[in-house]
Amino acid sequence: MSSDAGAVAQALAGRSFASVDDFSNQELAYILALASDVAEYKESFAYACRGKIMASLFFEASTRTRLSFETAMLRLGGQLVSAIDIGATSLAKGETLADMARVVGGYADLIVIRHPWEGAARVVAEYAGIPVINAGDGGHEHPTQTLCDLFTLQRERGRLQGLRIALWGDLRYGRTVHSLAFALARFGATIVFRPGIGLAAPEHVLSKLATDYGGELVRGDVLSQAEGEGVLPVDALYMTPRSPHQLAMLPHLTAQLELDQGVDALYVTRLQKERMETMKEDLRPEDYPVVDRSLLRKKGFERSLVLHPLPRVDELSLDIDSDPRSLYFKQAHQGVPVRMALISLLLGCSPRRVEPSEWFEDDWRPVAHPRYTHETGVRCANERCVTNQPSELRYLPRKFVLIVGRPPRLRCSYCDHEMAPPIVATAEAYDEPLSRRKYHPARSRWATTIRPENLLLFASAEDAEAAGLRSGVT
Amino acid sequence: MSSDAGAVAQALAGRSFASVDDFSNQELAYILALASDVAEYKESFAYACRGKIMASLFFEASTRTRLSFETAMLRLGGQLVSAIDIGATSLAKGETLADMARVVGGYADLIVIRHPWEGAARVVAEYAGIPVINAGDGGHEHPTQTLCDLFTLQRERGRLQGLRIALWGDLRYGRTVHSLAFALARFGATIVFRPGIGLAAPEHVLSKLATDYGGELVRGDVLSQAEGEGVLPVDALYMTPRSPHQLAMLPHLTAQLELDQGVDALYVTRLQKERMETMKEDLRPEDYPVVDRSLLRKKGFERSLVLHPLPRVDELSLDIDSDPRSLYFKQAHQGVPVRMALISLLLGCSPRRVEPSEWFEDDWRPVAHPRYTHETGVRCANERCVTNQPSELRYLPRKFVLIVGRPPRLRCSYCDHEMAPPIVATAEAYDEPLSRRKYHPARSRWATTIRPENLLLFASAEDAEAAGLRSGVT
Amino acid sequence: MSSDAGAVAQALAGRSFASVDDFSNQELAYILALASDVAEYKESFAYACRGKIMASLFFEASTRTRLSFETAMLRLGGQLVSAIDIGATSLAKGETLADMARVVGGYADLIVIRHPWEGAARVVAEYAGIPVINAGDGGHEHPTQTLCDLFTLQRERGRLQGLRIALWGDLRYGRTVHSLAFALARFGATIVFRPGIGLAAPEHVLSKLATDYGGELVRGDVLSQAEGEGVLPVDALYMTPRSPHQLAMLPHLTAQLELDQGVDALYVTRLQKERMETMKEDLRPEDYPVVDRSLLRKKGFERSLVLHPLPRVDELSLDIDSDPRSLYFKQAHQGVPVRMALISLLLGCSPRRVEPSEWFEDDWRPVAHPRYTHETGVRCANERCVTNQPSELRYLPRKFVLIVGRPPRLRCSYCDHEMAPPIVATAEAYDEPLSRRKYHPARSRWATTIRPENLLLFASAEDAEAAGLRSGVT
Repeated sequence: MSSDAGAVAQALAGRSFASVDDFSNQELAYILALASDVAEYKESFAYACRGKIMASLFFEASTRTRLSFETAMLRLGGQLVSAIDIGATSLAKGETLADMARVVGGYADLIVIRHPWEGAARVVAEYAGIPVINAGDGGHEHPTQTLCDLFTLQRERGRLQGLRIALWGDLRYGRTVHSLAFALARFGATIVFRPGIGLAAPEHVLSKLATDYGGELVRGDVLSQAEGEGVLPVDALYMTPRSPHQLAMLPHLTAQLELDQGVDALYVTRLQKERMETMKEDLRPEDYPVVDRSLLRKKGFERSLVLHPLPRVDELSLDIDSDPRSLYFKQAHQGVPVRMALISLLLGCSPRRVEPSEWFEDDWRPVAHPRYTHETGVRCANERCVTNQPSELRYLPRKFVLIVGRPPRLRCSYCDHEMAPPIVATAEAYDEPLSRRKYHPARSRWATTIRPENLLLFASAEDAEAAGLRSGVT
Repeated sequence: MSSDAGAVAQALAGRSFASVDDFSNQELAYILALASDVAEYKESFAYACRGKIMASLFFEASTRTRLSFETAMLRLGGQLVSAIDIGATSLAKGETLADMARVVGGYADLIVIRHPWEGAARVVAEYAGIPVINAGDGGHEHPTQTLCDLFTLQRERGRLQGLRIALWGDLRYGRTVHSLAFALARFGATIVFRPGIGLAAPEHVLSKLATDYGGELVRGDVLSQAEGEGVLPVDALYMTPRSPHQLAMLPHLTAQLELDQGVDALYVTRLQKERMETMKEDLRPEDYPVVDRSLLRKKGFERSLVLHPLPRVDELSLDIDSDPRSLYFKQAHQGVPVRMALISLLLGCSPRRVEPSEWFEDDWRPVAHPRYTHETGVRCANERCVTNQPSELRYLPRKFVLIVGRPPRLRCSYCDHEMAPPIVATAEAYDEPLSRRKYHPARSRWATTIRPENLLLFASAEDAEAAGLRSGVT
Repeated sequence: MSSDAGAVAQALAGRSFASVDDFSNQELAYILALASDVAEYKESFAYACRGKIMASLFFEASTRTRLSFETAMLRLGGQLVSAIDIGATSLAKGETLADMARVVGGYADLIVIRHPWEGAARVVAEYAGIPVINAGDGGHEHPTQTLCDLFTLQRERGRLQGLRIALWGDLRYGRTVHSLAFALARFGATIVFRPGIGLAAPEHVLSKLATDYGGELVRGDVLSQAEGEGVLPVDALYMTPRSPHQLAMLPHLTAQLELDQGVDALYVTRLQKERMETMKEDLRPEDYPVVDRSLLRKKGFERSLVLHPLPRVDELSLDIDSDPRSLYFKQAHQGVPVRMALISLLLGCSPRRVEPSEWFEDDWRPVAHPRYTHETGVRCANERCVTNQPSELRYLPRKFVLIVGRPPRLRCSYCDHEMAPPIVATAEAYDEPLSRRKYHPARSRWATTIRPENLLLFASAEDAEAAGLRSGVT
C-alpha cells in the first residue's frame, strides 16, 4: 500500500460512501486528517465546492444529521436542494429507488440520502451516476456518524490504533453502534459491550466482528470468570489479540486483563424507540443504563471520554454536562468539518493536501468472501432489506456473499443481514442426471465437503425439490 | 413577424408563464434555442441570476418538478426560498391567493407555483407584480413540462414542425398531455390519442384542439374505417391538413394515410391516481396500456422515441430502459437547462443571445375569441377552478370568452374549462320593454341569429327569469 | 446615554432578540434607521453576510414570517439551513431545547426560531452561544413583527415619539399586538384598545403597561364618561401624560381630549383561531369589528393609516385595498429591509453606519423589578410556559421578578406571565425558631410590611406548611 496522500485523495473522487467498509483504513485516516485541516483552515475551504449542488434526500426525519450535512456543503461554498419527509410524496409515487436515483443524479452533483430501507443508499449509489453518501439506511449503517466518532476519538486520544471502547445502551437498534464497532475493530480496538436489558448487539453484528476483523469475541462463561470487582456487567468483549494465540491459551485471564485496564471512552446511545417494532411491555426505563457522575468516578472510568451521537434522552445525566470528559456536544459540532472533508473529497474539490498523523502499513481490507452466484430462490430474510420491497424486487438482483462455516451462511450485499439456509446441495458436475442429485441439511458434515463455489443453498426442502433435487437423507 | 432574436428575448423579460399559450411560437422556439445553448455553455450561465431570489411555492407535493426548478435557479447563481406542502399552513390561514401573491411578490424576484386549483397560477401572476411560472395547477396545465417535452423532441428529431406523436395512457387526468397536445398542434403536428380504458382526453381538450388550432379532429366511425392491421386501437386523431380540403373529401383515407406512417414519438403517462375523485372499481391495471419491447418492434414504432414525464409506474416496461429510443431519463435531465433558459429570460438576465434553428414565419397566435362581458350570473362549471373557491370568489371576476357555435359555449379564462349554458337571449337594443324580451334554448336556430357581442347566456331558465326575461318558447 | 451611533451598532453585535425589551429605545431607533438605509442602498448590503449561515427553525408553521427572514438573509449574501414543521421530528426526539440549541449553535452563525412554548426563544438564546432571534414564541412575543410595525409608522408619520394608535380586533391572542403595545408605550404613545367581543387584551398585558411604562391606564366608568359621539366603543385607553398629574385631576376629560384627536394609525389583527384553546360557541363572526371604507370616512380616522400584520381574513374589507392609507402590503414588504438590518447588526456585519433621525435622550430602560430568589416551590401558572414542559422542567431554573403591590405578584422571566400567589411569609431573620414563623394571606395589610427582598410567596397554605410555617391567622 502506497503512503502517497495525494493518490489516496484522488482515489476518493467520484466514489460513494454507503458503508464504512467502502473505504480502506488509509482512506478513512486521510478523511480524518483533512477534517482536522478544515477545522483549522476553514477559510481555505470557503469556495471549494462553488458551483456544486448537493441533493439532500431525507425519506425519514432527521433534522440534526441533515442540518450538519447542509451546513457542511454551504461552508464549502456549495448549494443545496432538499427533499425532506418524503415518505408520502412525489418521489415515492410508486417509483423505484433506481428511477429516483437516475433522475436526481441528472440534477445534482452529490446525493445525501436517509431512507428507512436497509441497503437503500447502496441501490441509489449504483444508479445515480454521481457520488452518494448514506445518511442512515434503517437499522443498517450511518457511516458518517462513525467518521465523526472516529474523528473525536482520534483528536482526544491522539490515535485511532488500539483503543479500548465501551459501547453502552441500545446495542440492538443503534445503527451508529454497529458501524462504529466494525470501524474500531479495523483499527485493532478492544470493544466492551454493555447493553440495556434486551438490547444486546444482534448476532449478525457480533458474528461479522468475529468473522471479518481478525479479533476474538468472548462471551458467556469466559466473561463471567473474567469479570472482577467494580467491573460493569459486560455482555460481550471483542479483542484484537496483541500476540498470536494469546487468547486461545487463557481466554478468561486475557479478558480480565483487558477489562482491568478500563476504557478510553464510553460510547453511549439512547433507546431507539422508533426502530422497535413492538415495544416490549417489560422493557422498563430503569433497566436502561445511565451514565452519570458516580459512574465516571468508578475504577476504570477515571479517564474515559463520554461520546454520544445525540439526541440524548435520560441515559446521559445532566450532571456530567460540565465534566471535561463529556465530549458529546463537541462531537456534534465536529460533524461539520468531518462532512466538509468527506464531501470535498468525493466531489474532487478539496483545495488542500494533508498528511495523516497515523498511517496503517498493513491496510485492512474487507475479507473477500466468495460471491454466491447460484439462482436457488433464496431471498434476504430481513424484511426491511431494500431487496424485499415491492417496488424494488422487480428489478434488483439478489446479491449474497458466502460465509464458509457449519452451517454455511449467506450475507446480503445490500443490508449485511446474514442467514443460514437449512438445505444444501452441490452444483458440481458429475455423471448422474440432475434428477438424482441430492440435498442435505446445511449443518450436516456432508455439507462441509462441498467446495464453496459449488455450494447450493435453499430456504427449504420444498425449494430444493422444486429445483429437481431429492432428499439425500435416507 | 420580425425574426429579430434580440427583440424576442427582450419581450420575454418580466413576463409570466401560466400557460403554454402565453408565448408565441417564436418565443417558444427562442426559449428552446437558449436551452440548447445553456446545455452547451453551462459555465457562461453560472452567475446569470446572481442576487435574484426564486420563491418556490408548492401547495401540492412534487419533489421532482421542484428539484428541477430549484437546481435550475442555483445553476444560474440565484437563490431560493421555498414553501412546500403548504396546504395546511400559514400561507393558507384563510388568505386569498391575491394577498399571498402580493406579499411574496414583495420578497422575491420570481415565483414558481404549484397549486391544486385550476387557474391558480394565472391569479398569482395577476397580483404578484413579478414573473410567475406555473409548475402545475390541478389538472389544468404544466407548461414547463411541455417545454421540456418539446425540447427533447426537437433535439432528437431535428425539428418541431409537423411531428407525428402518439399520446399514450391517462389522457384524462394527465395535464402534461393536455399542454403538450396544444403545443404540438401549434407546430402542425399529427396527434394520435391512445388512452387507457375510461381515460380518454376530456371533451374540452379535444374541442379546443378543433376550435383553436386550425387542424381537424377525427373520431368514431371514420377512425374505425381508417384503422388498418397492426395499428393500435386509437381513440381520436388530430391532423393538421397538408392541403386545403384534404380531409373533407376523404376523411378515412386521409386518416389511414396518417396512421400508416407510424409515429415519431410515443408520449407515455402514468395513471394519475391522485387526481381521480372516485377511483372506479372497474378500472383494472390490466386495462392500462404498457409500452414494452414487443410494442417497440411493431410496424409504425420502429423509430418511435419513447418519452414520459416520470415518475413511471408499470406503463413503461423495465426491459426498454437500455433501448436507445428510450429518452425519459434524458428528458428529465433536460428539464434543468430548459428551466434555466426560461428563468433567465423572464428575469431579463440571460447572458447570451441565440438564433433558433427553426423560425415560424406565420407565427401562431391564440384564436381571438370574443370576451363575454355580460353579467348573467354564469359561473365556471369546473369545481376545481380557482374562481369557485370560497376564499377567491369574493374578489375574483369571472372571465369567459365566447366560442361561437350551436350551442354557443363559454370558456373560463382561468381554467379553460368550457360549458354550454342551456339558455340564450339577446342584449340588442330594440323597442320592446325589457320585461317582454324573451329567452330561448341555446341549441335553437334562433340563437344562431344573435350577434356574438349581444349574446346573453344563462345557466338556467330560472336565472333568465330572475333577470326579467320570459320564455320565448310558446 | 451616548448618542454615538457607532457604539450602538457595536453593542448589538452578538446579542439575541428574544423580546422587544432586550433593546433600548436608542438601539431600536438605530435598527430602524439602518433598515431605511438598506431600503435605499440595497446593493451595498448584497455581500454583507457572505459566509454566514442562518438556521431557520420553525416548530410551528409560519411560511410568511419564515420567507421574510430567509429572503433577508439571502439578500445579505448569507446562506440558510432550515427545519420546518418540526413538531414531530428528530429535533424533538425527547430532546431538550437546551441540547438542541447547543447542537445547532455549533453549526450555524444565527438562529431564527418559532416555537409554540412561551419563552422558548429565551431558553435557546441562553444555550446556543450564537445570536438568536425570536420569530414568535406561542402567544408571548413576536418582536421582529413589532420592528416592522414601528418602521412603517415611523416612515409614514415621520416620527415614533408620541403616536396615537388604535389596536383593533383580537387583542387577546394576538401576540403581535402585545409586543407592539409595549414598544409604543416606550415611545410615549397613546393607545386605544378596540377589541372584538370576548377578545380584550389580557390583564397581564394591561397590568404591565401600567406598571412598567410610566403611563396611565383608563378603563370602565371613566372611559364611558369620556366617550363622545362618533367615537368607537373603546375598551381601555393607555396614555403617556404630557404634564405631571394631568390625568389624576380630570381623568375622563383627559381621556376625552385624547380620543377626540383621532388616531394616527389603526393596527388591525385577524382572529387568532389557532391560539384559542376552546373556540367559544358564542363568538360570532359578526362580533368581530371590520375596517372598511365607511369607517375610514368617520371623524377621527380621516388620516389614520391602516396596518395589519397579515394574513387578513375578513377584518379588512377588500374595498380599502386601493386606499392610499392602506399600508399592510407595504408593511409586509418592509419586513425584508428591517430584518436585513437586524440580522446584519446581530452578526456584526453591517457594512454601513447610519444616524437615526430621532434620538431618545432619556432612554427607556425596563423597570428593574427585584428578582425573586426564594425557593418556595412556586411555578409559572402559564401552562404554555417553557418552564412547565416535561422535557424542560428537568433543568430550567424558575425565574421570577417581584412586582411589589397588594397583593404582590411574580412575573415569569421567560413568558412574562404574572400571578399573585395567595400566601406570604417573611424570610427575615429573627429570634423565633423557624417552626413558629407564620404565613398570612397575600392581600393582608401585614404583607405590605415585609421588605421585598424578604417576601416569601407560596402557591397554597399547604406549600407554606410543608416549608415549616404555621398560619398567622387566628
